[in-house]
Amino acid sequence: MRSVDTVIDARWIVPVVPDGLVLTEHSLVVDGGEIVALTPSDKVAGTFDPAERIELSEHALIPGLVNGHTHAAMTLLRGFADDLPLVAWLNDHIWPTEGEWVDERFVWDGTTLAAAEMLSAGVTCFNDMYFFPQVAAQVAHEAGIRMVAGLICIDGENNYSTSAADCIEKGLALHTELAGSQLVTTAFAPHAPYSVSDEPLATIAALSRQLGIPVHTHVNEGSGESADSVGRYGLTQLRRLDGLGLVNDRLVAAHMVHLSGDDMDMVAKANSHVVHCPESNLKLGSGFCDVDGLLRAGINVGLGTDGPASNNDLDMLAELRMAALVAKGFSRDAAALPARQALYLATLGGAKALALDHKVGSLEVGKRADIAAICLDGLANRPIYDPISQIVYTATRQQVSDVWVDGVAKLSSGELIGFDEDAIHENAEQWAAKISGQEKVS
Amino acid sequence: MRSVDTVIDARWIVPVVPDGLVLTEHSLVVDGGEIVALTPSDKVAGTFDPAERIELSEHALIPGLVNGHTHAAMTLLRGFADDLPLVAWLNDHIWPTEGEWVDERFVWDGTTLAAAEMLSAGVTCFNDMYFFPQVAAQVAHEAGIRMVAGLICIDGENNYSTSAADCIEKGLALHTELAGSQLVTTAFAPHAPYSVSDEPLATIAALSRQLGIPVHTHVNEGSGESADSVGRYGLTQLRRLDGLGLVNDRLVAAHMVHLSGDDMDMVAKANSHVVHCPESNLKLGSGFCDVDGLLRAGINVGLGTDGPASNNDLDMLAELRMAALVAKGFSRDAAALPARQALYLATLGGAKALALDHKVGSLEVGKRADIAAICLDGLANRPIYDPISQIVYTATRQQVSDVWVDGVAKLSSGELIGFDEDAIHENAEQWAAKISGQEKVS
Repeated sequence: MRSVDTVIDARWIVPVVPDGLVLTEHSLVVDGGEIVALTPSDKVAGTFDPAERIELSEHALIPGLVNGHTHAAMTLLRGFADDLPLVAWLNDHIWPTEGEWVDERFVWDGTTLAAAEMLSAGVTCFNDMYFFPQVAAQVAHEAGIRMVAGLICIDGENNYSTSAADCIEKGLALHTELAGSQLVTTAFAPHAPYSVSDEPLATIAALSRQLGIPVHTHVNEGSGESADSVGRYGLTQLRRLDGLGLVNDRLVAAHMVHLSGDDMDMVAKANSHVVHCPESNLKLGSGFCDVDGLLRAGINVGLGTDGPASNNDLDMLAELRMAALVAKGFSRDAAALPARQALYLATLGGAKALALDHKVGSLEVGKRADIAAICLDGLANRPIYDPISQIVYTATRQQVSDVWVDGVAKLSSGELIGFDEDAIHENAEQWAAKISGQEKVS
Repeated sequence: MRSVDTVIDARWIVPVVPDGLVLTEHSLVVDGGEIVALTPSDKVAGTFDPAERIELSEHALIPGLVNGHTHAAMTLLRGFADDLPLVAWLNDHIWPTEGEWVDERFVWDGTTLAAAEMLSAGVTCFNDMYFFPQVAAQVAHEAGIRMVAGLICIDGENNYSTSAADCIEKGLALHTELAGSQLVTTAFAPHAPYSVSDEPLATIAALSRQLGIPVHTHVNEGSGESADSVGRYGLTQLRRLDGLGLVNDRLVAAHMVHLSGDDMDMVAKANSHVVHCPESNLKLGSGFCDVDGLLRAGINVGLGTDGPASNNDLDMLAELRMAALVAKGFSRDAAALPARQALYLATLGGAKALALDHKVGSLEVGKRADIAAICLDGLANRPIYDPISQIVYTATRQQVSDVWVDGVAKLSSGELIGFDEDAIHENAEQWAAKISGQEKVS
């Protein structure tokens, strides 16, 4: 008999690897934060002696969801300026407001709200890009959520940095500081090809090679970006990034809405990764990423919510459903992006993009125990012909009942562990009151 | 002091009329199933003496959602055959299965599940099209949900009818039977132009004119339908319907995905109504309805989930969010279908299409009290700059806490009233077990 920390008995387990497998009446065995076995529930007794045994009789266990692209602290601007076109939204609302208000406290409060929201919704890992990443990384440690801290880099001066070079310097310091972290890794995060010039991009390419960490950036989000790039640099966004040494298997390209055949080929040959953000692309009127085309070209794709100011939530269950639905509409093919593949994108696809697939993204022995349990007991989930279909097409974030990150319970029977939710609410409303100059909504 | 049945004090009230209005700290006063006042909460005392007073301190009241197009009993086929193209889905899976299994019991059990699911999600009215509508109408009465019973008509023989003429005869009998009903009205429901021939369509046109009831049908859902119609009849679907006397202000055209300029003009001039079903159109790969174009042409638009076998739920909050997002992506315009307009479509737009706007669809004095309360207390809804934005872009069906239909409470603090939920579950799984020939999931 082996003593272990936790045994979780579940009605269904969807490990994501192998593709499409659904185990029924199995148990997941966790010890020291690691998945040590998946076994039929009736074989646990006599083999494992768990300190804790949890029965989830109407639930499906899936790998914790990976939010492959977000700006977590922007929860504080959720719903602040909706139904506006991308350029006006950024130039007239988001950027001026950020210029006035974003500081370490903003990032602390916004990222804390985001971490609580994501854990409640089964998101166990997020790839973040925002100002003051050292603050967001502290929040992730305190919240116990896995994070890829984006070493943000942007030209010019802002509340966080004086120049792109300053960004890189601050980023390297944070990378060093995080060296021993189990939960937080790093990626360079040059904001976008249009907001970062050649020299810092080339420096980042060299540093990414040396340090072996990803480079996370926006690519081809808006329709005019590649034409603008050609006008300014004589090259499309991706050709320019390629010339600077950035199009390789460490590139994590968010959005990729407006793609030429050349773009698609370049990304496929380089084994670069795409993070598809369908809700944000729709909400900002950016258009439709041809995710089915990317997948058929053999490109690894993850999913992201983008920032909560353009979504307006951090709900990866909603995002994977949206991805599955929009792919079919865009391709005029109901077989495009089937349910099990959408779930793959939201878990292992994202983990691969972030170079974390050796640790998380599937429920396999030897991986860290990042797990979400989804209760399928609701009227809107019944009957159940196929649990994966029900997860993808009918489940909402409120059905996520239990979540573990690195083997540590963060949500138990729907209750968040280790957060002061009243304080989070209060802080969010205080910020909204200040930002809007209105009376506080409490 | 006026004695009244119920006063509901709400943090916010979004009456939908006038457009965009949000009342804060107001109360809705209900008596005899009718909305008799909207008044500041601090003015209730001394004016009204309610038998019951309900405080919803973190909630927004909206008009009950109107599901403008569904096949409610198909809950029992939810997730039965996903990720398949429309024609194969219908011909190889849905129709053969319906042929084998659909009977009065199927419709009773499936519609009961649907009614419970819809009421839980704030849907107080649904426009149904399915076999055995007399059974579904009985369920609606028993469940206390408002319904437009579709007097289904389809060529050929099926488990319900022997011919289109038989359908019309049965439909007229049901129309007569329902004459005194407060909750259930009727619409003719010829299935689709491709499945009903000229003679019964012309009969329905004449009867609709005599009886003054709507005609609810599928129009231009799949991409090939209008070309097929031209091949078979020498006319597009809408030109043929027009020739038969059906394109007028009683026409409720579901889907309308594939539209020519001529189609759009015809519908606009005739003041016909469109019910937009974005999730189903995506899931079946049908494509994108140009809802923004329809609205700019002055056409009244409602929203529908379509049947739960192609969605896979009856969740109108998800549907209105999808409508708002997809309209922006399709139009490449983030200002398309703003939040308040999406909410209008899901309430008063649908009520207008169903000729019920004199009774429901907005929270106005004199209308019947069909109301949904949405709790905006969740982390994913905070902060709140604009409650309408939060309802549309961040709220899920689980946040619907209280629902009234015709003044009668159907959901109270998240608990359904008057349903045996265990029996509904059990029946649904029994059906799934029979249909799939597998062991029952209980």
